[in-house]
Amino acid sequence: MPDSVTFAIIGATGAVGREALAILAQRAHPVDHIRAITSDRSAGTQIPYAGSALTAEEFDADQLADVDCALLCTDATTSRRVAPCLVQQGVLVIDNSSAFRHDPRVPLVIPEINAAELQPESTIIANPNCSTIILLLATHPLRAAFGLREIVVSTYQAVSGAGLAAIDELRRQTHAALESRVLSHHVFPQPCAFNVFPHESTFDPATGFNGEEQKIISESRRILADPSLSIMPNCVRVPVERAHSQSILVTLEQPATLQQVRACLAAAPGLRWIDDQTAPTSPTPQQATGIDPVLVGRVRRADAGPDESSQRFMLWVCGDQLRKGAALNALQIADLALNLRARSPRALPRALDRPHAHLPTPIEN
Amino acid sequence: MPDSVTFAIIGATGAVGREALAILAQRAHPVDHIRAITSDRSAGTQIPYAGSALTAEEFDADQLADVDCALLCTDATTSRRVAPCLVQQGVLVIDNSSAFRHDPRVPLVIPEINAAELQPESTIIANPNCSTIILLLATHPLRAAFGLREIVVSTYQAVSGAGLAAIDELRRQTHAALESRVLSHHVFPQPCAFNVFPHESTFDPATGFNGEEQKIISESRRILADPSLSIMPNCVRVPVERAHSQSILVTLEQPATLQQVRACLAAAPGLRWIDDQTAPTSPTPQQATGIDPVLVGRVRRADAGPDESSQRFMLWVCGDQLRKGAALNALQIADLALNLRARSPRALPRALDRPHAHLPTPIEN
Repeated sequence: MPDSVTFAIIGATGAVGREALAILAQRAHPVDHIRAITSDRSAGTQIPYAGSALTAEEFDADQLADVDCALLCTDATTSRRVAPCLVQQGVLVIDNSSAFRHDPRVPLVIPEINAAELQPESTIIANPNCSTIILLLATHPLRAAFGLREIVVSTYQAVSGAGLAAIDELRRQTHAALESRVLSHHVFPQPCAFNVFPHESTFDPATGFNGEEQKIISESRRILADPSLSIMPNCVRVPVERAHSQSILVTLEQPATLQQVRACLAAAPGLRWIDDQTAPTSPTPQQATGIDPVLVGRVRRADAGPDESSQRFMLWVCGDQLRKGAALNALQIADLALNLRARSPRALPRALDRPHAHLPTPIEN
Repeated sequence: MPDSVTFAIIGATGAVGREALAILAQRAHPVDHIRAITSDRSAGTQIPYAGSALTAEEFDADQLADVDCALLCTDATTSRRVAPCLVQQGVLVIDNSSAFRHDPRVPLVIPEINAAELQPESTIIANPNCSTIILLLATHPLRAAFGLREIVVSTYQAVSGAGLAAIDELRRQTHAALESRVLSHHVFPQPCAFNVFPHESTFDPATGFNGEEQKIISESRRILADPSLSIMPNCVRVPVERAHSQSILVTLEQPATLQQVRACLAAAPGLRWIDDQTAPTSPTPQQATGIDPVLVGRVRRADAGPDESSQRFMLWVCGDQLRKGAALNALQIADLALNLRARSPRALPRALDRPHAHLPTPIEN
């Protein structure tokens, strides 16, 4: 990404916003090409950045016309409110919330999988749910090579998906538990210290799936352009700070050998294959924390028939949900989409000429 | 169980031994009908019991002839050494280790499922692996009602399965982590504080499964007398003290409605069904800690076809691995087996007449 690009991080003091700034700092993106937008009460505070500091600003779209790309690290309600204002200013919007993920006019993109969905005239691009990104990064290569009939996935999700307040709740509750005190819970519906519990997202009484599980199903089907793909998720919170783990069983269309499956995963972009023969108790979410690649290990045949090949394989995957599961994926989208815009100079005016034509209708997910 | 029965708890100061004493105390079993056997270095110490105390003794089979039933809360090596000595004294042995679980002469029993395996002349009875007990308690009722084609299970296992030292490691490591200190790990191959990791049991390079997963497969097939049952386990440790959780997908032989599956589980012995419509984020391992029943909730159809019935259902199960997963199941076996012995007075002399005929050959699991 050229230094001359100006980013606005909307929600710069949240868990994902902080991670986006950390990645930009690692890339040595110049401080005067970053705008840090926060809630009103944080405006004016200094946010450390690469040995320097950013001054937090209130959101005012009129003041952001010089911004090339805004990363919305906000909740869905805020995203729905601010995205159209930014689009009207000609700003490319990458939204990390669920607000636009099922709008057919908004691409939902994991760059390693469906970068082709990006168009020069895209004005809003949706970043998928963190669990979906991690799941598909590990299973899409197998789908491309052997076809994919079915995914069964049980998640072990870090608390950071519920924001910085959740990390704080985990730490304070754990501290209390070690002293045999019980600290009440506010962020989560269950105690998170030394406990695990079904994901807290909205429960659908009709299907019995919670919101996180529904996102995995619907977003995976959209990203893979396979509306009938069978996905059976069970989403669970664990007392881990920021990387998600997943126990995955895939059923392939074509039989494959273990060597073929391992080679496929070892060559896949964004993934790092861990050899279980030398590291049978890896990967772990701590190993995945703070790094770009999603780790995949314990690759094995689920059935032990006499034939060498199988259609069913088990995987154990760990990925940093704040990084590849959120901020990194969003910045990778930004890189690609800004390049597309740069190579297609008429795209921006087109979006500005017809500002309302490109404003997606907010939908719930 | 009559008060006159005398129990010996072999390994009385370990995690399972302590739990067995706690259950006996809840049953108000008289203190003078319990013998607490520990390692040599603990001998002579006082072990609190129901407002009184037990004096820890070294193992000496000759001093245990008055014992009716010994609970072996020991590792497999110790169990192989002491079980034959106890059998020669006429003591009924319930072994919690893996030492005898695949000996065809030793019943492997979950009382709610295969109590019929117990025989009046049984001298050693094996208690199954904790994950196996919890898994089968939830899936056997469905198998009995609808047939069972396949089980996919991902575990979220408490550290207590690795003993009291593991609980201590979890607590000390967590305390250090909260102070941004790193405490090295001794019991586990990975840090357990704010982390999850593949189960630490012996890895089989040929299949890629670890020991815990192999136990679930082989013990489930033996207990259900279904040597070809398809079971695909992934076993993971989580930073929880003592109850295990499991994310389960079952494929039934016969289609069933959600109502039929829920009713089946709600009526099953040893299980407590949690209605997800009122408690969508339950059960949790904390809720399952210290209680007898295994909790099952989030019962839902895995596929959302047009038909009301399905062959595939997802479950979320939490059970106290020290209680139903170990000490409680062992004591339930003891109750049944001692009753069988009492009703069949010739069984005991028979065992004594031919002491060596009933000594199982130790095998590995």
